[in-house]
Amino acid sequence: TRCSRDWSSDVCSSDLRTYDPRTFKALTFHDATARFRAGSDSPRDYLERCLATIAAREPVVKAFVVLNDTNARAAADASNARWKAGMPLSAIDGMPIAIKDLLETKDMPTDFGCAAYNRNETHRDNAAVWALREAGAVILGKTVTAELGGSHPGPTTNPWDATRTPGGSSSGSAAAIAARMCPTALGTQVGGSVIRPAAYCGNIALKPTQGGINRGERQATSMSTPGVHAGCIEDMWQVAIEIAKRAGGDPGKLGLFGPGVTPEAVKPQRLIVIESAGWKASDDNTRKAIDTLMDNLARAGVTLLRRKDHPWIEAFEQSIIDSNTVANTITAWENRWYQAALMEQHPNGVSVRLKNTVRKAIAMKPDDYRALLLKRAAAQQCHAAIAPLADAAIMLSCPGPAPVWAGDKPGEPLNPRPTGDSVCNTPSSMLHAPAVTMPLMSVGGMPVGAQLMGQQHEDARMTSLARWVLREVGAVVV
Amino acid sequence: TRCSRDWSSDVCSSDLRTYDPRTFKALTFHDATARFRAGSDSPRDYLERCLATIAAREPVVKAFVVLNDTNARAAADASNARWKAGMPLSAIDGMPIAIKDLLETKDMPTDFGCAAYNRNETHRDNAAVWALREAGAVILGKTVTAELGGSHPGPTTNPWDATRTPGGSSSGSAAAIAARMCPTALGTQVGGSVIRPAAYCGNIALKPTQGGINRGERQATSMSTPGVHAGCIEDMWQVAIEIAKRAGGDPGKLGLFGPGVTPEAVKPQRLIVIESAGWKASDDNTRKAIDTLMDNLARAGVTLLRRKDHPWIEAFEQSIIDSNTVANTITAWENRWYQAALMEQHPNGVSVRLKNTVRKAIAMKPDDYRALLLKRAAAQQCHAAIAPLADAAIMLSCPGPAPVWAGDKPGEPLNPRPTGDSVCNTPSSMLHAPAVTMPLMSVGGMPVGAQLMGQQHEDARMTSLARWVLREVGAVVV
Repeated sequence: TRCSRDWSSDVCSSDLRTYDPRTFKALTFHDATARFRAGSDSPRDYLERCLATIAAREPVVKAFVVLNDTNARAAADASNARWKAGMPLSAIDGMPIAIKDLLETKDMPTDFGCAAYNRNETHRDNAAVWALREAGAVILGKTVTAELGGSHPGPTTNPWDATRTPGGSSSGSAAAIAARMCPTALGTQVGGSVIRPAAYCGNIALKPTQGGINRGERQATSMSTPGVHAGCIEDMWQVAIEIAKRAGGDPGKLGLFGPGVTPEAVKPQRLIVIESAGWKASDDNTRKAIDTLMDNLARAGVTLLRRKDHPWIEAFEQSIIDSNTVANTITAWENRWYQAALMEQHPNGVSVRLKNTVRKAIAMKPDDYRALLLKRAAAQQCHAAIAPLADAAIMLSCPGPAPVWAGDKPGEPLNPRPTGDSVCNTPSSMLHAPAVTMPLMSVGGMPVGAQLMGQQHEDARMTSLARWVLREVGAVVV
Repeated sequence: TRCSRDWSSDVCSSDLRTYDPRTFKALTFHDATARFRAGSDSPRDYLERCLATIAAREPVVKAFVVLNDTNARAAADASNARWKAGMPLSAIDGMPIAIKDLLETKDMPTDFGCAAYNRNETHRDNAAVWALREAGAVILGKTVTAELGGSHPGPTTNPWDATRTPGGSSSGSAAAIAARMCPTALGTQVGGSVIRPAAYCGNIALKPTQGGINRGERQATSMSTPGVHAGCIEDMWQVAIEIAKRAGGDPGKLGLFGPGVTPEAVKPQRLIVIESAGWKASDDNTRKAIDTLMDNLARAGVTLLRRKDHPWIEAFEQSIIDSNTVANTITAWENRWYQAALMEQHPNGVSVRLKNTVRKAIAMKPDDYRALLLKRAAAQQCHAAIAPLADAAIMLSCPGPAPVWAGDKPGEPLNPRPTGDSVCNTPSSMLHAPAVTMPLMSVGGMPVGAQLMGQQHEDARMTSLARWVLREVGAVVV
């Protein structure tokens, strides 16, 4: 298990590390509540250990835009009293959680990682943040996002190697978990913004079924959802379900389904190994790592199917082969209206990367967009067709370890993907499918994730399967 | 035809009138463009006639929150030049259009009919407004909306009788058309906010298929769409399609389909006469009027089917009988998050009516919402099942003439429906179905509408059928 056995060592100050999935102990919360009940620990003490870790590591990691320490301490003290009285509001009462800076919070500004929104105070909580407070969670701060959830990076570094990107756009949320600054964090994914940074940082994360968690004020795109980064699968699920219990899903959507506590581990009988365009984009060591992981799965008794094994799997592979283009162009069109207006108001308040994206989107017509929607719908049908063949799909969560990123260089062409390639993530985004990433591989000392992807509304089932894989299948170090 | 024959009389100053659908000439635009080409009229002259009518009638009608006369004159002058050069941007180049104050405009504040948003300057255009400017339309001003598109009314009066409501929430847009202040106006509908005020004011209007017209920044509910109020069906369609051509539909939706000019009149072979809960809510004279209209349709050779004629029609009637509760409760839940936050920030900035709605929504759980979504989905299935039986459904657009409304009286219980009952409109809203209202009846001197409702994406077909009915079927005065 990744859960901490010696919680007194939960303050973490080292910046020099190598990721080893066999030994790494993540910061976890679900195993602390028994201590809160017993009085040997408290939400306030837990928070103070988080703040000590942040103080030690934040100068290099740069995960936070704003730290909410005063309000967080007050919230933790209120939680102390509830646990003492034996009346916590939920299983996550007292849990420190970091919020990606795309989501509004009433006690902090929301800058969207964009200069045009500098110190943007909306004085209201996003629906998920509201639900977290109702559940007693401690809102710890706002974490760095790539600009407007796109590809232009913020200052966050990868906790395993500061010369590398933590991934994006949920950069700060991913890094905060890997650096053990807090047990959970909210991210959001449109293309690859939850699963990819989680995979680069060694986190467990859920990208729910599209519409599963109420987006609140940010409804402008047809693919985007809040997601949960966590150190362990128990905390991941508990956060997701506590939000969904209170705030429900997006307008018109049934919302996230599942049990009120983390579903039991279930062994998959059959998994479909998906290549996607991510296979071509991956490096040799990463291929070696995922192949070894698949061997370990087979050795554990799981039957693996591949594109050569069934024509529907082959058809599905073909339907997602240009997922990056389909997903990213759909999103560019959907964001075009508000981003073009923002550019007009703040010509110097957005990056050149964003301007390039908006320029391409402005050249599109509604019929271009319609054609992409039809491609997406066809891929969703191909995905539905493989449902009867296996319990889930399994694939790389990222094409390799987090790339090195030293910033844009004046005079050189812009790196199109400073936060990494979303090629392994745009499939689940365009399919509106749930995905759970598992940090089961280390390549050259850096984390690489593998993800389980299910049909829409199978979030709890993916969590069950991932719980089993995390527990029973040997991790891989290459 | 409702189109003006003598355009020199297009300035309208009378406040004392009786609605007669047989003789009323609406203000129309499509028949003016030939004059623009010929040089006998111009967009600027057209605009000045609109402004003269506004000056004469606005003191009583109170349709506008802000009039954009300076910018409108500049836009009209630019249009003059394009028509003179023979290069209009579209068929609606130079058309003055009023915008409901729920939709953002970069050169005017957007107050949402809500004190909490007093003089709210967003400096950007809603997607539809942006598209209208691209098409050369003249943005005339912002029209009064009921508070946040709900039921708490603004100051607008019904142009046919100032003691009565114009309907809501698109109150000002509906009244501006009836008072001949401008040829078209944008409204929005969540429950009944486009079709009901149009029916009360004697307008033609389209409530498109859900998602047909890009909502831009206002995506927070699963039932809401911009719609077009117009004096004639040609202007109605042209505005809708010019927007859709440029801004497309909502994220993830294919958007409004149809020809680039108003589709030809097509005679319906069969229509299904739907009662809905609107029948019980209607008064004797209104029932007499719609019965007579149905007689006229039958006389014109249209076969009419009713609930007794087919079990699927009976099933459909039952599926929508509680449409007001289903639609309004779904919307209350979906708005809960942002409206509760608004109330918290501005306790005195929202009406008691809104507070009551939010309080009820806060008591709901995600499972209550899910149950309503399933009811809605079942009704949509029942609606799909009647598609093969006829060309469209036809029903009242409102349960009777606009009710008298003299404002809330201190000490008395709040009238729950000061802008009228949406019982005839929540069916098309919850079905995501297109509806076109036709002002074919007069009851006691006030307009009453009948609407054609089709399957999703049949907007152009409904327009064709309505065009035929408007031309060929005798209007009714009771």
